[in-house]
Amino acid sequence: MSMTSTKDDVVALAQRLLACPSVTPATGAVFAELESMLAPLGFTVDRFIAGEAPDGPVENLLAWRTTGAGPHFAYAGHLDVVPPGAGWTSDPFAPDIRGDLLYGRGAVDMKGSIAAFVAALSDLPDDLPGTISLIITGDEEGPAVHGTLALIDRMATRGLRPDFCLVGEPTSTQRLGDVVKIGRRGSVNMWITVQGAQGHVAYPHLADNPIPRLVRILAAIEAEELDQGTDWFQPSNIEITDLEVGNPAHNVIPGQATARISIRFNDQHSGASLIERMKELAAVEGGTVEARISGESFLTQPGPLSDLVTAAIRDVTGVEAELSTTGGTSDARFLSRLCPVVEFGLNNATMHKLDEAVAVQDLRDLQRIYARIAKRALRPA
Amino acid sequence: MSMTSTKDDVVALAQRLLACPSVTPATGAVFAELESMLAPLGFTVDRFIAGEAPDGPVENLLAWRTTGAGPHFAYAGHLDVVPPGAGWTSDPFAPDIRGDLLYGRGAVDMKGSIAAFVAALSDLPDDLPGTISLIITGDEEGPAVHGTLALIDRMATRGLRPDFCLVGEPTSTQRLGDVVKIGRRGSVNMWITVQGAQGHVAYPHLADNPIPRLVRILAAIEAEELDQGTDWFQPSNIEITDLEVGNPAHNVIPGQATARISIRFNDQHSGASLIERMKELAAVEGGTVEARISGESFLTQPGPLSDLVTAAIRDVTGVEAELSTTGGTSDARFLSRLCPVVEFGLNNATMHKLDEAVAVQDLRDLQRIYARIAKRALRPA
Ligand SMILES: [Zn+2]
Ligand SMILES: [Zn+2]
Repeated sequence: MSMTSTKDDVVALAQRLLACPSVTPATGAVFAELESMLAPLGFTVDRFIAGEAPDGPVENLLAWRTTGAGPHFAYAGHLDVVPPGAGWTSDPFAPDIRGDLLYGRGAVDMKGSIAAFVAALSDLPDDLPGTISLIITGDEEGPAVHGTLALIDRMATRGLRPDFCLVGEPTSTQRLGDVVKIGRRGSVNMWITVQGAQGHVAYPHLADNPIPRLVRILAAIEAEELDQGTDWFQPSNIEITDLEVGNPAHNVIPGQATARISIRFNDQHSGASLIERMKELAAVEGGTVEARISGESFLTQPGPLSDLVTAAIRDVTGVEAELSTTGGTSDARFLSRLCPVVEFGLNNATMHKLDEAVAVQDLRDLQRIYARIAKRALRPA
Repeated sequence: MSMTSTKDDVVALAQRLLACPSVTPATGAVFAELESMLAPLGFTVDRFIAGEAPDGPVENLLAWRTTGAGPHFAYAGHLDVVPPGAGWTSDPFAPDIRGDLLYGRGAVDMKGSIAAFVAALSDLPDDLPGTISLIITGDEEGPAVHGTLALIDRMATRGLRPDFCLVGEPTSTQRLGDVVKIGRRGSVNMWITVQGAQGHVAYPHLADNPIPRLVRILAAIEAEELDQGTDWFQPSNIEITDLEVGNPAHNVIPGQATARISIRFNDQHSGASLIERMKELAAVEGGTVEARISGESFLTQPGPLSDLVTAAIRDVTGVEAELSTTGGTSDARFLSRLCPVVEFGLNNATMHKLDEAVAVQDLRDLQRIYARIAKRALRPA
């Protein structure tokens, strides 16, 4: 007996979300669609606009349902998608099933995942105690300034604070369930500038070339070992990503030289501690540092939440998930300030690519995994 | 009794040359003016055009007068000038005497010097044995490709080869006669490039960042001591003049990085030997080198020619000249392939500047010095 014809089938739900164009920052139709799925299930739905141009406006959706006293389990994610680009086989916003795959921008990142959560709600017992919430933003793929951060503020004003949070980013790599993320590295960019005094190459004693000093700073940075990694993180890494002098004159000693570095760091560091360290190294040669922190690192120590997620994966798929902290940043870095956070979702092979697609069977398996996770989170075995 | 009213007075000669606009590359009127000064003095004058656009056409003038058997003394210089720029007190091509100074573009660099040589010819005894020549180009301030090099070819086809050459560049700094140049450093620019493989900063193992390798090459170049200087030259010097990566993306490891260096070198090196050395240093980190030699170094060992020049300066001005090899390149680097070459001329304080001017008295003293030099060169005491 197939469920594909019923209205709350996970594939049908995914198709409804995929049919709404929602290139970041997202507002409107796609949120209305999600609201229409959640309201009949007894959820209170709070949609609101945050931010202004050029980043905004961003729409966010907070939904929750409380059934008696108990823990609060939150499901978090985003409805915005990256631009589809040209060259798709079918319309990226006209979801299309070909063979075993459902195609559409956001199929794996992460409307398919949100559909699986909604579908999972129907599988839960009616008497499950506690609170279930959805924390859904329209700006995760963009600046992420008026998205999850605004949702966290909104929850605070409503007195909502989750005890566990599952972010539905596509973490699987080879097959559904092979990777669960329990942390992410932080990211910071810095600009190191050395001022000198311009002059003519024939009279170097009248000039002060900033480049040799910048080279010595960069050599010191290259020699710096930030850490050797931890049980759960690879070593923090510094990359020099740009050098800029911009001196067109062959016989002129330039007056200024700048290098840009990018550091991906684990939980042994903070953005601020790294900025301080780079300032120390730069100051030896009179260099100055400007910095922009993209995100702090976070780690949810393996424990009850990750055990619960890996057990649910094992039960449904037989796959033994690997706990990982690799890759870029995600909104989990914000939610980790509230409670333990784990990320788990669909196969990321086609995310952000042309012909993004999800296996229909993966959607069905993910629905079952998500249902087990919520059940165990609210009523431990 | 003043000479200022006579036609071949050095000041009048200088005014005639200064009145002809001759921004580099120079042709025409200014050469006709010089020819009209030399022909009455018994010189054979050979004017010719060399080169093509965009560098040319360049006019050059070769003039010579032979009186019996004897050595060949050559006077070399240029009639082209750098653009005057805006902001002169008087028209840069309408020579103007105010106070003790004669103003005009080229007053010291080096029409004043050429006028002094022509005036000096009138002071020479009629029976001076040997050959006197003038080697005058219209392109010293520009690319200098079709100037003195073409004159050297022209002399070869005419069987003319000087035994001594005096280049009239403005070498004096504080007062007329304080500095004589017996050599110049060479100059070479190089571009050092390291290729890597572009990638994302979150996955450095999939990329190959060229910047750390370029930094190590530059550190090695900075540590390189080319020489400690010689009796007549300061140490050769390497300046890193530019760094270029051009990577706008903060999260991208770039695929290529380039540095430009400029080396001013003494007679311990050649352009080719330095290119080889930098290629060795770059190759350690997989870097490649492209190079352009602007000029080789040269040195006329202190001896008969420099003694003769410093003695003439001492006799006329009482100044004890310093022998120097500092500053940029000049056409002396080409002429030094033929014979001993020394550079001596007016005070360079205003060369290439607004309101370029020469002291009238310096022109008169220079005429006397140049006459003594030619006399002693052709008939040693
Ligand atoms: Zn995503
Ligand atoms: Zn000159």
